[in-house]
Amino acid sequence: MKKVRPDNFKIIAKDNLARAGVLSLPHGLVETPVFMPVGTQGSVKALSPDDLKENGAQIILGNTYHLYLRPGSELIKKMGGLHKFMNWDGPILTDSGGFQAFSLGAMIEHGVKKVSSKAQDQSKIKVRDRELYKDSNEIQEIEQRKDLVMSQVLDEGVEFKSHLDGSKHLLTPEKSIQVQLDLGSDICLVLDELLSPMHNSKYVAESLSRTHRWEKVSQQYFQKKLKSGTNPNALLFGILQGVYNKDIRISEAKWVSAQGFDGVSIGGSLGTSQFWGGDILDWTARKAIGDTMTWVKLFIPENLPVHALGIGEVVNIFDCVEQGIDMFDCVSPTRRARNGSLYISPHSGGTILNNFTLLISNSRFRDDPKQIDPSCNCYTCSNFSRSYMRHLFLSKELLFYRLASIHNVHFIIQLTRLIRKSILDHRFQNLKKEWIQDYKGIIVTKN
Amino acid sequence: MKKVRPDNFKIIAKDNLARAGVLSLPHGLVETPVFMPVGTQGSVKALSPDDLKENGAQIILGNTYHLYLRPGSELIKKMGGLHKFMNWDGPILTDSGGFQAFSLGAMIEHGVKKVSSKAQDQSKIKVRDRELYKDSNEIQEIEQRKDLVMSQVLDEGVEFKSHLDGSKHLLTPEKSIQVQLDLGSDICLVLDELLSPMHNSKYVAESLSRTHRWEKVSQQYFQKKLKSGTNPNALLFGILQGVYNKDIRISEAKWVSAQGFDGVSIGGSLGTSQFWGGDILDWTARKAIGDTMTWVKLFIPENLPVHALGIGEVVNIFDCVEQGIDMFDCVSPTRRARNGSLYISPHSGGTILNNFTLLISNSRFRDDPKQIDPSCNCYTCSNFSRSYMRHLFLSKELLFYRLASIHNVHFIIQLTRLIRKSILDHRFQNLKKEWIQDYKGIIVTKN
Repeated sequence: MKKVRPDNFKIIAKDNLARAGVLSLPHGLVETPVFMPVGTQGSVKALSPDDLKENGAQIILGNTYHLYLRPGSELIKKMGGLHKFMNWDGPILTDSGGFQAFSLGAMIEHGVKKVSSKAQDQSKIKVRDRELYKDSNEIQEIEQRKDLVMSQVLDEGVEFKSHLDGSKHLLTPEKSIQVQLDLGSDICLVLDELLSPMHNSKYVAESLSRTHRWEKVSQQYFQKKLKSGTNPNALLFGILQGVYNKDIRISEAKWVSAQGFDGVSIGGSLGTSQFWGGDILDWTARKAIGDTMTWVKLFIPENLPVHALGIGEVVNIFDCVEQGIDMFDCVSPTRRARNGSLYISPHSGGTILNNFTLLISNSRFRDDPKQIDPSCNCYTCSNFSRSYMRHLFLSKELLFYRLASIHNVHFIIQLTRLIRKSILDHRFQNLKKEWIQDYKGIIVTKN
Repeated sequence: MKKVRPDNFKIIAKDNLARAGVLSLPHGLVETPVFMPVGTQGSVKALSPDDLKENGAQIILGNTYHLYLRPGSELIKKMGGLHKFMNWDGPILTDSGGFQAFSLGAMIEHGVKKVSSKAQDQSKIKVRDRELYKDSNEIQEIEQRKDLVMSQVLDEGVEFKSHLDGSKHLLTPEKSIQVQLDLGSDICLVLDELLSPMHNSKYVAESLSRTHRWEKVSQQYFQKKLKSGTNPNALLFGILQGVYNKDIRISEAKWVSAQGFDGVSIGGSLGTSQFWGGDILDWTARKAIGDTMTWVKLFIPENLPVHALGIGEVVNIFDCVEQGIDMFDCVSPTRRARNGSLYISPHSGGTILNNFTLLISNSRFRDDPKQIDPSCNCYTCSNFSRSYMRHLFLSKELLFYRLASIHNVHFIIQLTRLIRKSILDHRFQNLKKEWIQDYKGIIVTKN
């Protein structure tokens, strides 16, 4: 029934389940495993397109929700598409807006995301379905937060209020695809609903059924548009949703694999409600990511590229590649950079315990003439000391944000290249052992 | 008596009073007229050293006051000096801290500078000499601001409280020079006191006499240090202070010219008290700058490079070069950039009326595919549209600040190069007429 285009993705080497491939996209080839820096508002924060190229970025991610609201996808289309608008001539993957619906809805409702006072003014969407929550304590807390929620999931799509001006919008599957095609995306994603560990099984079943409908509608709209000549070489990835439950995840993997998508993005808030919103060092969260990839990967056709949505920390990249995941995206490298959390490799003291980072604000770097990571050859490490970087950070100099972002993006991209090479050389497990020790993380308990 | 080193500066062409020269400094040659971008805290805001080089910067300015407080000049010395610390291998001119003493003192006292609530907490230095002000109204207003003032001028130097932590410091002439030598400056400036148009003639006379003493002490300390082998090729510029008064300025020009400095920096708050703190389009302020340069330049030896402290707007650069000024510095290009005020040449609609700028936030740029200045070939103009720049600005994307700063710094530096070429070709007046029309600015009246 559906057009399958396995020739878009070629696996050129495997090392157990880990694989190295080449993904062919309208704006160029992408060597996998690949990390995609996130350019939320048409810019990877603090970095120019040249910075991205020079630091090895092959493909970036753009956010449908943000660009739809500002500057508007119709304006971007008028200006020649997102590639021309932001002067990035490489491939772009766009998300569907589903995550922002979740972030403005369930993440606030479930107390994981705090709401700024400005955003509070904009939020008047009422929360429905009180009875969908597990226990009365949760419901009570949720009731207290209901006025803060800025989106809700309807059968026809996601209704949300703009975080910018409070204006009301309805994001349907068709609308999401239309926006992505207006942007000129190389890889579009279907509209989906994310699930929180605090949703009960009734809500989960209802949501997955709705996501299936949305995915089909997205696909039909996408295929219709492509036939009419719009962005004819764009790819469409399905999204594999679910919660931390083996049966559900396997069932969803089978479902999404049968739809004829060009690839699969794995989404969802991984982990259990106890650890929801937990720390990166939380072993339970790490285990949930690894488990999920292990469960689903066997049921996804070998010839489909698989993308782990929002995953981009060192340990998670290793765990996912080990299960055969090909693509990663995450705001973490650039967000960490702006907060002074800079990546260091094992040669420079990086371990799973410090999440391969140093905090540049630490006074021990005051007169440290070494570069951030002495084994790194990025522009920042080639030219500036920890002492200078610390000074720029403490002085809130704008240059800091760029130099730190260059380093962190370079670091994670180089890591995926190193991993790719290890797969080609059939020594992925050796590389993983060099980076990830036996230590399995701290068990983080809430309160 | 004093060592005169006229060989540091060679004039290679003159066009009436305007001149093109080459200044020889420890870290390289500088072609004049030259614009020096300001790197207040060891970074020209939002720009890397590579950005500066690629956009034609030959020499930058560092701020003694800021670097002394953070990260500390001793730390910078330990890290190998400011050049190594910030990875800038070209010449650096450092100011003396005198301007910050003024900015934290008289500018607040006289109501020109507002004080942030945070800074207010730090300010407890008492203001002396009530009787030095012209009329009782002013004194009353000044009394109301006295608790906000964060520095005061003593005979031995400037006492100030840090804007960072409220710690108390005394900046003597010796201390200022020592800090500049610790930084490894190519051109040091003597410590001086700036005068405000609201200071009366008694205060002016007292202040100028004190500045003379400070300049001599600075010079003696500098020469002693150089003889002992510290930074042996550094230059020392004297500062020509005063108010908007021909006799005083001429007398000061004669005095500073007789001291054997390697160059002269012209300082002071130019203009009259009526227009103090006025607009760039204020013709009175423009006239005051032009008049001052005209008065003093005749009395400064031809072989000394002359620097107009803090001057860097298009019209003022033309007016000053016309009188034989060689060097300029100003935070304006980078500060304007961060505020979305971007330079445009006459080819792109720039006139003295819009101060050769456009405001990128204007809605007419929403879908404007043109570059900021179509006649500019900087990185920003070569790659991005006004529409994209407006989007980045409204979205507060960090990339905006760099791209805008690149353009504005490139623009002003290119302007000084254009001016230099016009002097070499003996067509400076033609160039000035192309840029500056007969229009003499708006007369701005207060209230």
